[in-house]
Amino acid sequence: MTRRARWADETYQGIVRTGFRVKRRLFKKRSPFQLVEVVETAGHGRLLLIDGMTMVSERDEFVYHEMIAHVPLFVHPRPRRVLVIGGGDGGSVREVLRHAGVERCVLAEIDPVVVEASRRFLPGTASGLSDRRCEVRIGDGVRFVRETAERFDVVIVDSTEPFGPAKELFGPAFYKDVRRILTKDGIVVSQAGSPFYELSTIRNLGRILRPIFPVTDAYLFTNLTYPGGLWAFTFASKGPRPVKDLKPARVRAARLPLRWYAADVHAAAFALPPFVRKALGR
Amino acid sequence: MTRRARWADETYQGIVRTGFRVKRRLFKKRSPFQLVEVVETAGHGRLLLIDGMTMVSERDEFVYHEMIAHVPLFVHPRPRRVLVIGGGDGGSVREVLRHAGVERCVLAEIDPVVVEASRRFLPGTASGLSDRRCEVRIGDGVRFVRETAERFDVVIVDSTEPFGPAKELFGPAFYKDVRRILTKDGIVVSQAGSPFYELSTIRNLGRILRPIFPVTDAYLFTNLTYPGGLWAFTFASKGPRPVKDLKPARVRAARLPLRWYAADVHAAAFALPPFVRKALGR
Repeated sequence: MTRRARWADETYQGIVRTGFRVKRRLFKKRSPFQLVEVVETAGHGRLLLIDGMTMVSERDEFVYHEMIAHVPLFVHPRPRRVLVIGGGDGGSVREVLRHAGVERCVLAEIDPVVVEASRRFLPGTASGLSDRRCEVRIGDGVRFVRETAERFDVVIVDSTEPFGPAKELFGPAFYKDVRRILTKDGIVVSQAGSPFYELSTIRNLGRILRPIFPVTDAYLFTNLTYPGGLWAFTFASKGPRPVKDLKPARVRAARLPLRWYAADVHAAAFALPPFVRKALGR
Repeated sequence: MTRRARWADETYQGIVRTGFRVKRRLFKKRSPFQLVEVVETAGHGRLLLIDGMTMVSERDEFVYHEMIAHVPLFVHPRPRRVLVIGGGDGGSVREVLRHAGVERCVLAEIDPVVVEASRRFLPGTASGLSDRRCEVRIGDGVRFVRETAERFDVVIVDSTEPFGPAKELFGPAFYKDVRRILTKDGIVVSQAGSPFYELSTIRNLGRILRPIFPVTDAYLFTNLTYPGGLWAFTFASKGPRPVKDLKPARVRAARLPLRWYAADVHAAAFALPPFVRKALGR
Protein backbone atom coordinates (compact mmCIF):
# COMPACT_ATOMS: atom_id res chain seq x y z
CA MET A 1 0.00 0.00 0.00
CA THR A 2 1.40 3.38 -0.89
CA ARG A 3 1.01 6.35 1.40
CA ARG A 4 -1.53 8.03 -0.86
CA ALA A 5 -3.66 4.97 -1.52
CA ARG A 6 -7.19 4.99 -0.26
CA TRP A 7 -7.42 1.25 -0.83
CA ALA A 8 -5.36 -1.47 0.80
CA ASP A 9 -5.02 -3.61 -2.33
CA GLU A 10 -3.57 -7.08 -2.24
CA THR A 11 -2.63 -8.44 -5.63
CA TYR A 12 -2.50 -12.21 -5.79
CA GLN A 13 -0.68 -14.23 -8.43
CA GLY A 14 -0.85 -11.15 -10.66
CA ILE A 15 -4.39 -12.08 -11.71
CA VAL A 16 -6.72 -10.91 -8.96
CA ARG A 17 -6.72 -8.18 -6.36
CA THR A 18 -8.81 -7.46 -3.33
CA GLY A 19 -8.92 -4.00 -1.84
CA PHE A 20 -10.34 -2.60 1.35
CA ARG A 21 -11.22 1.06 1.61
CA VAL A 22 -8.80 2.69 4.03
CA LYS A 23 -9.59 5.62 6.30
CA ARG A 24 -6.17 5.95 7.87
CA ARG A 25 -3.00 4.16 8.73
CA LEU A 26 -2.40 3.46 12.41
CA PHE A 27 0.89 1.60 12.41
CA LYS A 28 3.80 0.83 10.10
CA LYS A 29 7.04 -0.81 11.09
CA ARG A 30 9.58 -2.90 9.25
CA SER A 31 10.71 -5.77 11.45
CA PRO A 32 13.74 -7.96 10.66
CA PHE A 33 11.24 -10.34 9.01
CA GLN A 34 8.60 -8.29 7.26
CA LEU A 35 6.66 -5.06 6.93
CA VAL A 36 3.88 -4.87 9.53
CA GLU A 37 1.02 -2.39 9.14
CA VAL A 38 -2.32 -1.69 10.75
CA VAL A 39 -4.94 0.38 8.93
CA GLU A 40 -8.40 1.55 9.85
CA THR A 41 -10.85 0.71 7.06
CA ALA A 42 -14.25 2.08 6.10
CA GLY A 43 -16.07 -1.25 6.36
CA HIS A 44 -13.89 -3.95 7.87
CA GLY A 45 -12.66 -2.46 11.11
CA ARG A 46 -8.93 -2.57 11.46
CA LEU A 47 -6.69 -4.69 9.25
CA LEU A 48 -3.32 -6.19 10.10
CA LEU A 49 -1.18 -6.35 6.96
CA ILE A 50 2.10 -8.22 6.57
CA ASP A 51 4.10 -7.34 3.48
CA GLY A 52 0.90 -5.90 2.06
CA MET A 53 -1.13 -9.08 2.59
CA THR A 54 -4.17 -8.88 4.84
CA MET A 55 -3.70 -11.22 7.76
CA VAL A 56 -6.58 -10.17 9.99
CA SER A 57 -9.64 -7.99 9.59
CA GLU A 58 -11.64 -7.18 12.70
CA ARG A 59 -14.85 -7.75 10.77
CA ASP A 60 -14.34 -11.40 9.93
CA GLU A 61 -11.34 -12.77 11.80
CA PHE A 62 -13.80 -14.78 13.89
CA VAL A 63 -14.24 -17.25 11.03
CA TYR A 64 -10.58 -18.14 10.67
CA HIS A 65 -9.84 -18.21 14.38
CA GLU A 66 -12.93 -20.19 15.36
CA MET A 67 -12.22 -22.80 12.70
CA ILE A 68 -8.50 -23.18 13.35
CA ALA A 69 -9.04 -23.58 17.11
CA HIS A 70 -12.36 -25.29 17.80
CA VAL A 71 -12.06 -28.05 15.21
CA PRO A 72 -9.04 -29.69 16.90
CA LEU A 73 -10.09 -28.74 20.43
CA PHE A 74 -13.53 -30.31 20.12
CA VAL A 75 -12.15 -33.44 18.42
CA HIS A 76 -9.42 -34.02 21.02
CA PRO A 77 -10.94 -35.91 23.97
CA ARG A 78 -9.43 -33.63 26.63
CA PRO A 79 -7.16 -30.84 25.41
CA ARG A 80 -5.16 -29.23 28.19
CA ARG A 81 -1.93 -28.01 26.62
CA VAL A 82 -1.96 -26.20 23.31
CA LEU A 83 0.82 -24.75 21.17
CA VAL A 84 0.12 -22.05 18.58
CA ILE A 85 2.88 -21.41 16.03
CA GLY A 86 2.66 -18.04 14.34
CA GLY A 87 -0.62 -16.31 15.09
CA GLY A 88 1.02 -13.35 16.81
CA ASP A 89 -2.22 -11.41 16.48
CA GLY A 90 -3.60 -13.56 19.31
CA GLY A 91 -6.89 -14.57 17.68
CA SER A 92 -6.18 -18.29 17.79
CA VAL A 93 -5.09 -18.06 21.43
CA ARG A 94 -8.31 -16.22 22.29
CA GLU A 95 -10.39 -19.07 20.85
CA VAL A 96 -8.23 -21.80 22.43
CA LEU A 97 -8.68 -20.23 25.84
CA ARG A 98 -12.47 -20.31 25.55
CA HIS A 99 -12.07 -24.00 26.41
CA ALA A 100 -12.22 -24.14 30.19
CA GLY A 101 -10.15 -27.34 30.27
CA VAL A 102 -7.14 -25.72 28.63
CA GLU A 103 -4.49 -25.12 31.29
CA ARG A 104 -1.71 -23.71 29.15
CA CYS A 105 -1.36 -22.16 25.72
CA VAL A 106 2.06 -21.33 24.34
CA LEU A 107 2.31 -18.91 21.43
CA ALA A 108 5.56 -19.21 19.46
CA GLU A 109 5.71 -16.17 17.19
CA ILE A 110 8.85 -15.22 15.36
CA ASP A 111 8.09 -11.52 14.94
CA PRO A 112 7.64 -9.36 18.06
CA VAL A 113 6.37 -6.51 15.90
CA VAL A 114 3.25 -8.52 14.99
CA VAL A 115 2.52 -9.03 18.68
CA GLU A 116 3.22 -5.38 19.47
CA ALA A 117 0.96 -4.09 16.69
CA SER A 118 -1.84 -6.46 17.61
CA ARG A 119 -1.73 -5.69 21.33
CA ARG A 120 -1.88 -1.96 20.62
CA PHE A 121 -4.31 -1.80 17.73
CA LEU A 122 -6.31 -5.05 17.68
CA PRO A 123 -7.14 -5.46 21.36
CA GLY A 124 -10.23 -7.58 20.67
CA THR A 125 -8.13 -10.06 18.72
CA ALA A 126 -5.09 -9.96 21.00
CA SER A 127 -7.06 -10.25 24.24
CA GLY A 128 -6.06 -13.87 24.90
CA LEU A 129 -2.37 -12.98 24.99
CA SER A 130 -2.87 -11.37 28.40
CA ASP A 131 -4.59 -14.44 29.87
CA ARG A 132 -2.60 -16.01 32.72
CA ARG A 133 -2.72 -19.36 30.90
CA CYS A 134 -0.94 -17.94 27.86
CA GLU A 135 2.82 -17.73 27.44
CA VAL A 136 4.06 -15.63 24.54
CA ARG A 137 7.47 -16.85 23.34
CA ILE A 138 9.10 -14.67 20.74
CA GLY A 139 11.23 -16.92 18.58
CA ASP A 140 11.39 -19.42 15.78
CA GLY A 141 8.51 -21.88 16.04
CA VAL A 142 10.37 -24.50 14.00
CA ARG A 143 13.24 -24.41 16.44
CA PHE A 144 10.92 -24.41 19.45
CA VAL A 145 9.22 -27.58 18.19
CA ARG A 146 12.61 -29.20 17.52
CA GLU A 147 14.08 -28.40 20.91
CA THR A 148 11.31 -28.25 23.48
CA ALA A 149 10.85 -30.92 26.14
CA GLU A 150 7.20 -29.94 26.59
CA ARG A 151 4.34 -32.03 25.25
CA PHE A 152 1.12 -30.69 23.76
CA ASP A 153 -2.32 -32.11 23.06
CA VAL A 154 -2.97 -29.78 20.14
CA VAL A 155 -0.60 -27.85 17.87
CA ILE A 156 -2.03 -25.06 15.72
CA VAL A 157 0.09 -23.84 12.81
CA ASP A 158 -1.30 -20.36 12.28
CA SER A 159 1.19 -19.21 9.68
CA THR A 160 1.46 -16.90 6.73
CA GLU A 161 1.96 -18.30 3.23
CA PRO A 162 4.65 -20.92 2.51
CA PHE A 163 7.41 -18.46 1.74
CA GLY A 164 9.48 -16.00 3.78
CA PRO A 165 9.77 -16.79 7.49
CA ALA A 166 7.05 -19.46 7.29
CA LYS A 167 8.77 -21.63 4.66
CA GLU A 168 10.04 -24.33 7.00
CA LEU A 169 6.55 -24.77 8.45
CA PHE A 170 5.63 -26.45 5.20
CA GLY A 171 8.25 -29.24 5.35
CA PRO A 172 8.39 -32.85 6.62
CA ALA A 173 11.12 -32.24 9.22
CA PHE A 174 8.86 -29.80 11.02
CA TYR A 175 5.92 -32.21 11.10
CA LYS A 176 8.08 -35.05 12.43
CA ASP A 177 9.05 -32.76 15.27
CA VAL A 178 5.39 -31.89 15.80
CA ARG A 179 4.56 -35.59 16.08
CA ARG A 180 7.29 -35.96 18.68
CA ILE A 181 5.90 -33.22 20.92
CA LEU A 182 2.27 -34.32 20.59
CA THR A 183 0.70 -36.46 23.31
CA LYS A 184 -1.07 -39.76 22.59
CA ASP A 185 -4.27 -38.35 21.06
CA GLY A 186 -2.45 -35.32 19.66
CA ILE A 187 -3.79 -33.24 16.78
CA VAL A 188 -2.13 -30.69 14.52
CA VAL A 189 -3.99 -28.33 12.22
CA SER A 190 -2.34 -25.99 9.71
CA GLN A 191 -3.28 -23.12 7.47
CA ALA A 192 -3.19 -24.61 3.98
CA GLY A 193 -3.97 -21.89 1.45
CA SER A 194 -6.61 -21.37 -1.21
CA PRO A 195 -8.11 -24.45 -2.87
CA PHE A 196 -9.00 -22.35 -5.91
CA TYR A 197 -5.69 -20.59 -6.41
CA GLU A 198 -3.05 -22.78 -4.84
CA LEU A 199 -4.30 -26.30 -4.62
CA SER A 200 -0.63 -27.32 -4.60
CA THR A 201 -0.22 -26.09 -1.00
CA ILE A 202 -2.93 -28.36 0.36
CA ARG A 203 -1.75 -31.21 -1.88
CA ASN A 204 1.86 -30.88 -0.71
CA LEU A 205 0.87 -30.63 2.94
CA GLY A 206 -1.24 -33.77 2.48
CA ARG A 207 1.75 -35.63 1.01
CA ILE A 208 3.95 -34.52 3.90
CA LEU A 209 1.41 -35.43 6.60
CA ARG A 210 0.25 -38.84 5.36
CA PRO A 211 3.48 -40.77 6.11
CA ILE A 212 3.80 -39.11 9.53
CA PHE A 213 0.26 -39.31 10.95
CA PRO A 214 -2.28 -42.15 10.80
CA VAL A 215 -5.20 -39.74 10.39
CA THR A 216 -5.06 -36.86 7.89
CA ASP A 217 -7.74 -34.74 6.33
CA ALA A 218 -8.52 -31.18 5.21
CA TYR A 219 -11.32 -28.77 5.91
CA LEU A 220 -12.63 -25.52 4.50
CA PHE A 221 -13.95 -22.16 5.60
CA THR A 222 -14.71 -18.89 3.84
CA ASN A 223 -13.73 -15.41 4.88
CA LEU A 224 -13.61 -11.96 3.41
CA THR A 225 -9.94 -11.21 3.55
CA TYR A 226 -8.04 -14.02 1.86
CA PRO A 227 -7.99 -14.15 -1.94
CA GLY A 228 -10.76 -16.32 -3.32
CA GLY A 229 -12.70 -16.37 -0.07
CA LEU A 230 -12.48 -20.14 0.29
CA TRP A 231 -9.53 -21.30 2.36
CA ALA A 232 -8.28 -24.59 3.76
CA PHE A 233 -6.76 -26.11 6.86
CA THR A 234 -5.11 -29.50 7.09
CA PHE A 235 -5.93 -31.80 10.01
CA ALA A 236 -3.62 -34.59 11.20
CA SER A 237 -3.74 -36.67 14.36
CA LYS A 238 -2.32 -39.67 16.17
CA GLY A 239 -5.80 -41.18 16.42
CA PRO A 240 -8.84 -38.90 16.74
CA ARG A 241 -10.91 -38.71 13.56
CA PRO A 242 -12.06 -35.22 12.64
CA VAL A 243 -15.75 -35.92 12.07
CA LYS A 244 -16.48 -39.33 13.60
CA ASP A 245 -14.95 -38.42 16.94
CA LEU A 246 -16.73 -35.08 17.23
CA LYS A 247 -19.40 -35.10 19.93
CA PRO A 248 -22.05 -32.50 19.11
CA ALA A 249 -23.42 -32.72 22.66
CA ARG A 250 -20.04 -31.58 24.00
CA VAL A 251 -20.06 -28.60 21.63
CA ARG A 252 -23.56 -27.63 22.73
CA ALA A 253 -22.72 -28.09 26.41
CA ALA A 254 -19.73 -25.75 26.12
CA ARG A 255 -22.09 -22.91 25.10
CA LEU A 256 -19.29 -20.84 23.58
CA PRO A 257 -20.33 -17.47 22.10
CA LEU A 258 -19.35 -18.33 18.52
CA ARG A 259 -20.52 -16.88 15.23
CA TRP A 260 -19.17 -19.34 12.67
CA TYR A 261 -18.35 -22.60 14.41
CA ALA A 262 -21.02 -25.12 15.41
CA ALA A 263 -21.00 -28.91 15.45
CA ASP A 264 -22.77 -29.17 12.10
CA VAL A 265 -20.54 -26.50 10.55
CA HIS A 266 -17.51 -28.47 11.80
CA ALA A 267 -18.70 -31.66 10.10
CA ALA A 268 -19.73 -29.77 6.95
CA ALA A 269 -16.27 -28.21 6.62
CA PHE A 270 -14.83 -31.66 5.88
CA ALA A 271 -17.21 -32.25 2.95
CA LEU A 272 -14.71 -31.41 0.23
CA PRO A 273 -15.85 -30.59 -3.30
CA PRO A 274 -14.76 -33.19 -5.87
CA PHE A 275 -12.12 -30.92 -7.38
CA VAL A 276 -10.41 -30.59 -3.98
CA ARG A 277 -10.81 -34.28 -3.12
CA LYS A 278 -9.25 -35.22 -6.43
CA ALA A 279 -6.24 -32.99 -5.78
CA LEU A 280 -5.76 -34.81 -2.49
CA GLY A 281 -5.67 -38.12 -4.35
CA ARG A 282 -8.95 -39.49 -3.01
CA MET B 1 -14.29 -0.49 -16.17
CA THR B 2 -12.73 2.30 -18.15
CA ARG B 3 -11.22 1.66 -21.56
CA ARG B 4 -7.68 2.05 -20.27
CA ALA B 5 -8.09 -0.06 -17.16
CA ARG B 6 -6.07 -3.23 -16.91
CA TRP B 7 -8.25 -4.44 -14.04
CA ALA B 8 -11.96 -5.14 -14.06
CA ASP B 9 -12.64 -3.76 -10.60
CA GLU B 10 -15.97 -4.19 -8.89
CA THR B 11 -16.47 -1.92 -5.91
CA TYR B 12 -19.02 -3.18 -3.43
CA GLN B 13 -20.79 -1.06 -0.83
CA GLY B 14 -17.95 1.45 -1.17
CA ILE B 15 -15.84 -0.60 1.23
CA VAL B 16 -14.32 -3.45 -0.74
CA ARG B 17 -13.30 -4.08 -4.31
CA THR B 18 -12.33 -7.14 -6.26
CA GLY B 19 -10.41 -6.81 -9.49
CA PHE B 20 -9.50 -9.26 -12.20
CA ARG B 21 -6.54 -8.60 -14.46
CA VAL B 22 -7.85 -7.91 -17.95
CA LYS B 23 -6.07 -8.76 -21.16
CA ARG B 24 -8.67 -7.35 -23.55
CA ARG B 25 -12.29 -6.50 -23.99
CA LEU B 26 -14.28 -8.72 -26.32
CA PHE B 27 -17.77 -7.24 -26.15
CA LYS B 28 -19.53 -4.13 -24.92
CA LYS B 29 -23.14 -3.23 -25.55
CA ARG B 30 -25.69 -1.17 -23.69
CA SER B 31 -29.05 -2.94 -23.74
CA PRO B 32 -32.33 -1.24 -22.71
CA PHE B 33 -31.69 -2.74 -19.28
CA GLN B 34 -27.98 -2.61 -18.54
CA LEU B 35 -24.42 -2.45 -19.79
CA VAL B 36 -23.21 -5.88 -20.89
CA GLU B 37 -19.49 -6.59 -21.31
CA VAL B 38 -17.25 -9.58 -21.88
CA VAL B 39 -13.54 -9.35 -21.13
CA GLU B 40 -10.67 -11.79 -21.45
CA THR B 41 -8.70 -11.97 -18.19
CA ALA B 42 -5.20 -13.10 -17.34
CA GLY B 43 -6.24 -15.75 -14.85
CA HIS B 44 -9.99 -16.31 -14.85
CA GLY B 45 -10.84 -16.99 -18.46
CA ARG B 46 -13.56 -14.76 -19.79
CA LEU B 47 -15.80 -12.67 -17.56
CA LEU B 48 -19.36 -11.56 -18.23
CA LEU B 49 -19.95 -8.17 -16.59
CA ILE B 50 -23.31 -6.47 -16.12
CA ASP B 51 -23.13 -2.83 -15.13
CA GLY B 52 -19.55 -3.49 -14.07
CA MET B 53 -20.47 -6.40 -11.78
CA THR B 54 -18.95 -9.78 -12.55
CA MET B 55 -21.73 -12.25 -13.25
CA VAL B 56 -19.77 -15.19 -14.63
CA SER B 57 -16.11 -16.13 -14.80
CA GLU B 58 -15.16 -19.13 -16.87
CA ARG B 59 -12.77 -20.25 -14.17
CA ASP B 60 -15.27 -20.79 -11.40
CA GLU B 61 -18.81 -20.52 -12.78
CA PHE B 62 -19.12 -24.26 -12.22
CA VAL B 63 -19.57 -23.68 -8.49
CA TYR B 64 -22.55 -21.36 -8.77
CA HIS B 65 -24.24 -23.27 -11.57
CA GLU B 66 -23.77 -26.71 -10.07
CA MET B 67 -25.15 -25.53 -6.74
CA ILE B 68 -28.15 -23.62 -8.09
CA ALA B 69 -29.20 -26.55 -10.32
CA HIS B 70 -28.30 -29.86 -8.70
CA VAL B 71 -29.53 -29.06 -5.20
CA PRO B 72 -33.20 -28.76 -6.26
CA LEU B 73 -32.94 -31.35 -9.03
CA PHE B 74 -31.55 -34.06 -6.76
CA VAL B 75 -34.06 -33.26 -3.99
CA HIS B 76 -37.09 -33.32 -6.28
CA PRO B 77 -38.23 -36.95 -6.70
CA ARG B 78 -38.55 -36.77 -10.49
CA PRO B 79 -37.86 -33.39 -12.10
CA ARG B 80 -39.03 -33.23 -15.71
CA ARG B 81 -39.92 -29.59 -16.37
CA VAL B 82 -37.67 -26.80 -15.17
CA LEU B 83 -37.95 -23.02 -15.43
CA VAL B 84 -34.89 -20.78 -15.13
CA ILE B 85 -35.54 -17.07 -14.59
CA GLY B 86 -32.64 -14.85 -15.51
CA GLY B 87 -29.48 -16.83 -16.12
CA GLY B 88 -29.16 -15.70 -19.73
CA ASP B 89 -25.55 -16.91 -19.75
CA GLY B 90 -26.91 -20.45 -19.94
CA GLY B 91 -24.83 -22.00 -17.14
CA SER B 92 -27.84 -23.04 -15.06
CA VAL B 93 -29.55 -24.55 -18.10
CA ARG B 94 -26.40 -26.53 -18.90
CA GLU B 95 -26.44 -28.08 -15.43
CA VAL B 96 -30.21 -28.72 -15.46
CA LEU B 97 -29.91 -30.60 -18.74
CA ARG B 98 -27.30 -32.96 -17.32
CA HIS B 99 -30.28 -34.67 -15.68
CA ALA B 100 -31.44 -37.25 -18.22
CA GLY B 101 -35.00 -37.15 -16.86
CA VAL B 102 -35.48 -33.46 -17.66
CA GLU B 103 -37.71 -33.17 -20.71
CA ARG B 104 -38.01 -29.41 -20.95
CA CYS B 105 -36.15 -26.39 -19.63
CA VAL B 106 -37.50 -22.90 -20.25
CA LEU B 107 -35.16 -19.94 -19.81
CA ALA B 108 -36.95 -16.63 -19.23
CA GLU B 109 -34.32 -13.92 -19.61
CA ILE B 110 -35.27 -10.29 -19.90
CA ASP B 111 -32.16 -9.11 -21.74
CA PRO B 112 -31.37 -10.55 -25.18
CA VAL B 113 -27.94 -8.92 -25.10
CA VAL B 114 -26.89 -11.19 -22.21
CA VAL B 115 -27.88 -14.24 -24.25
CA GLU B 116 -26.18 -12.87 -27.36
CA ALA B 117 -22.92 -12.09 -25.55
CA SER B 118 -22.87 -15.47 -23.83
CA ARG B 119 -23.58 -17.47 -26.97
CA ARG B 120 -20.80 -15.67 -28.81
CA PHE B 121 -18.13 -15.39 -26.13
CA LEU B 122 -18.91 -17.94 -23.41
CA PRO B 123 -19.75 -21.01 -25.48
CA GLY B 124 -18.84 -23.45 -22.71
CA THR B 125 -21.32 -21.76 -20.38
CA ALA B 126 -24.04 -21.15 -22.97
CA SER B 127 -23.88 -24.65 -24.48
CA GLY B 128 -27.18 -25.80 -22.94
CA LEU B 129 -29.11 -23.05 -24.69
CA SER B 130 -28.77 -24.94 -27.97
CA ASP B 131 -30.10 -28.21 -26.53
CA ARG B 132 -33.38 -29.29 -28.14
CA ARG B 133 -34.97 -29.53 -24.68
CA CYS B 134 -34.29 -25.84 -23.97
CA GLU B 135 -36.59 -23.00 -24.97
CA VAL B 136 -35.13 -19.49 -24.64
CA ARG B 137 -37.88 -16.94 -24.06
CA ILE B 138 -36.73 -13.35 -24.11
CA GLY B 139 -39.03 -11.43 -21.83
CA ASP B 140 -39.93 -10.48 -18.30
CA GLY B 141 -39.69 -13.52 -16.02
CA VAL B 142 -42.07 -11.99 -13.48
CA ARG B 143 -44.73 -11.61 -16.13
CA PHE B 144 -44.07 -15.08 -17.54
CA VAL B 145 -44.63 -16.62 -14.11
CA ARG B 146 -47.80 -14.56 -13.65
CA GLU B 147 -49.33 -15.47 -16.99
CA THR B 148 -48.12 -18.89 -18.05
CA ALA B 149 -50.41 -21.92 -18.08
CA GLU B 150 -47.41 -24.25 -17.90
CA ARG B 151 -46.43 -26.10 -14.75
CA PHE B 152 -42.89 -26.78 -13.57
CA ASP B 153 -41.28 -29.15 -11.11
CA VAL B 154 -38.39 -26.83 -10.34
CA VAL B 155 -38.01 -23.05 -10.69
CA ILE B 156 -34.53 -21.55 -10.52
CA VAL B 157 -34.28 -17.82 -9.91
CA ASP B 158 -30.85 -17.06 -11.33
CA SER B 159 -30.98 -13.30 -11.01
CA THR B 160 -28.72 -10.33 -10.49
CA GLU B 161 -28.90 -8.30 -7.30
CA PRO B 162 -32.25 -7.07 -5.94
CA PHE B 163 -32.27 -3.79 -7.83
CA GLY B 164 -32.66 -2.78 -11.46
CA PRO B 165 -34.55 -5.26 -13.64
CA ALA B 166 -34.40 -7.97 -10.95
CA LYS B 167 -36.20 -5.98 -8.23
CA GLU B 168 -39.58 -7.67 -8.55
CA LEU B 169 -37.95 -11.09 -8.23
CA PHE B 170 -37.44 -10.26 -4.57
CA GLY B 171 -41.12 -9.68 -3.70
CA PRO B 172 -43.99 -11.80 -2.33
CA ALA B 173 -46.26 -11.42 -5.39
CA PHE B 174 -43.66 -13.14 -7.53
CA TYR B 175 -43.28 -16.07 -5.14
CA LYS B 176 -47.05 -16.56 -4.91
CA ASP B 177 -47.07 -16.87 -8.70
CA VAL B 178 -44.14 -19.30 -8.50
CA ARG B 179 -46.14 -21.46 -6.07
CA ARG B 180 -49.04 -21.47 -8.51
CA ILE B 181 -46.97 -22.76 -11.42
CA LEU B 182 -45.12 -25.38 -9.36
CA THR B 183 -46.32 -28.99 -9.43
CA LYS B 184 -47.09 -30.98 -6.28
CA ASP B 185 -43.51 -31.56 -5.10
CA GLY B 186 -42.30 -28.30 -6.61
CA ILE B 187 -39.11 -26.57 -5.51
CA VAL B 188 -37.85 -23.02 -6.06
CA VAL B 189 -34.30 -21.88 -5.37
CA SER B 190 -33.09 -18.27 -5.62
CA GLN B 191 -29.85 -16.37 -5.57
CA ALA B 192 -29.82 -14.65 -2.19
CA GLY B 193 -26.72 -12.50 -1.90
CA SER B 194 -23.76 -12.36 0.45
CA PRO B 195 -24.27 -13.48 4.05
CA PHE B 196 -21.34 -11.33 5.14
CA TYR B 197 -22.26 -8.12 3.35
CA GLU B 198 -26.00 -8.21 2.82
CA LEU B 199 -27.56 -10.55 5.30
CA SER B 200 -30.74 -8.52 4.80
CA THR B 201 -31.30 -10.07 1.35
CA ILE B 202 -31.39 -13.61 2.68
CA ARG B 203 -33.39 -12.49 5.72
CA ASN B 204 -35.99 -10.72 3.57
CA LEU B 205 -36.28 -13.61 1.15
CA GLY B 206 -36.80 -15.91 4.13
CA ARG B 207 -39.61 -13.71 5.43
CA ILE B 208 -41.27 -13.67 2.01
CA LEU B 209 -40.97 -17.42 1.46
CA ARG B 210 -42.07 -18.73 4.87
CA PRO B 211 -45.78 -17.81 4.59
CA ILE B 212 -45.93 -19.14 1.02
CA PHE B 213 -44.09 -22.48 1.24
CA PRO B 214 -44.23 -25.19 3.93
CA VAL B 215 -40.49 -25.91 3.58
CA THR B 216 -37.91 -23.11 3.46
CA ASP B 217 -34.19 -23.09 4.03
CA ALA B 218 -30.97 -21.53 2.77
CA TYR B 219 -27.66 -22.90 1.61
CA LEU B 220 -24.18 -21.63 0.92
CA PHE B 221 -21.38 -21.90 -1.59
CA THR B 222 -18.14 -20.03 -2.21
CA ASN B 223 -16.81 -18.70 -5.47
CA LEU B 224 -14.13 -16.35 -6.67
CA THR B 225 -16.17 -13.71 -8.37
CA TYR B 226 -18.82 -12.46 -5.97
CA PRO B 227 -17.77 -10.04 -3.22
CA GLY B 228 -16.92 -11.83 -0.01
CA GLY B 229 -16.63 -15.22 -1.69
CA LEU B 230 -19.40 -16.75 0.41
CA TRP B 231 -22.82 -16.56 -1.22
CA ALA B 232 -26.30 -17.90 -0.49
CA PHE B 233 -29.29 -19.46 -2.18
CA THR B 234 -32.73 -19.81 -0.66
CA PHE B 235 -34.61 -23.10 -1.01
CA ALA B 236 -38.41 -23.40 -0.77
CA SER B 237 -40.67 -26.29 -1.62
CA LYS B 238 -44.19 -27.67 -1.43
CA GLY B 239 -42.91 -30.73 0.42
CA PRO B 240 -39.42 -32.07 -0.32
CA ARG B 241 -36.92 -31.36 2.42
CA PRO B 242 -33.53 -30.19 1.20
CA VAL B 243 -31.31 -32.54 3.19
CA LYS B 244 -33.55 -35.33 4.51
CA ASP B 245 -35.00 -36.09 1.09
CA LEU B 246 -31.67 -36.18 -0.70
CA LYS B 247 -30.69 -39.68 -1.76
CA PRO B 248 -26.90 -39.93 -2.05
CA ALA B 249 -27.24 -43.19 -3.99
CA ARG B 250 -29.18 -41.36 -6.69
CA VAL B 251 -26.45 -38.70 -6.92
CA ARG B 252 -23.78 -41.36 -7.25
CA ALA B 253 -25.77 -43.33 -9.81
CA ALA B 254 -26.15 -40.25 -12.01
CA ARG B 255 -22.35 -40.08 -12.40
CA LEU B 256 -22.40 -36.45 -13.49
CA PRO B 257 -19.01 -34.88 -14.29
CA LEU B 258 -19.13 -32.29 -11.51
CA ARG B 259 -16.37 -30.40 -9.77
CA TRP B 260 -18.12 -28.82 -6.79
CA TYR B 261 -21.40 -30.63 -6.17
CA ALA B 262 -21.55 -34.01 -4.46
CA ALA B 263 -24.10 -35.48 -2.06
CA ASP B 264 -22.04 -34.64 1.02
CA VAL B 265 -21.31 -31.13 -0.28
CA HIS B 266 -25.07 -30.68 -0.83
CA ALA B 267 -25.85 -31.60 2.76
CA ALA B 268 -22.93 -29.55 4.09
CA ALA B 269 -24.14 -26.44 2.27
CA PHE B 270 -27.19 -26.34 4.55
CA ALA B 271 -25.07 -26.28 7.73
CA LEU B 272 -25.36 -22.56 8.34
CA PRO B 273 -22.96 -20.73 10.65
CA PRO B 274 -24.65 -19.38 13.79
CA PHE B 275 -24.49 -15.78 12.58
CA VAL B 276 -26.46 -16.69 9.46
CA ARG B 277 -28.91 -18.92 11.32
CA LYS B 278 -29.57 -16.14 13.78
CA ALA B 279 -30.34 -13.69 10.97
CA LEU B 280 -32.90 -16.18 9.67
CA GLY B 281 -34.60 -16.22 13.06
CA ARG B 282 -33.67 -19.79 14.01
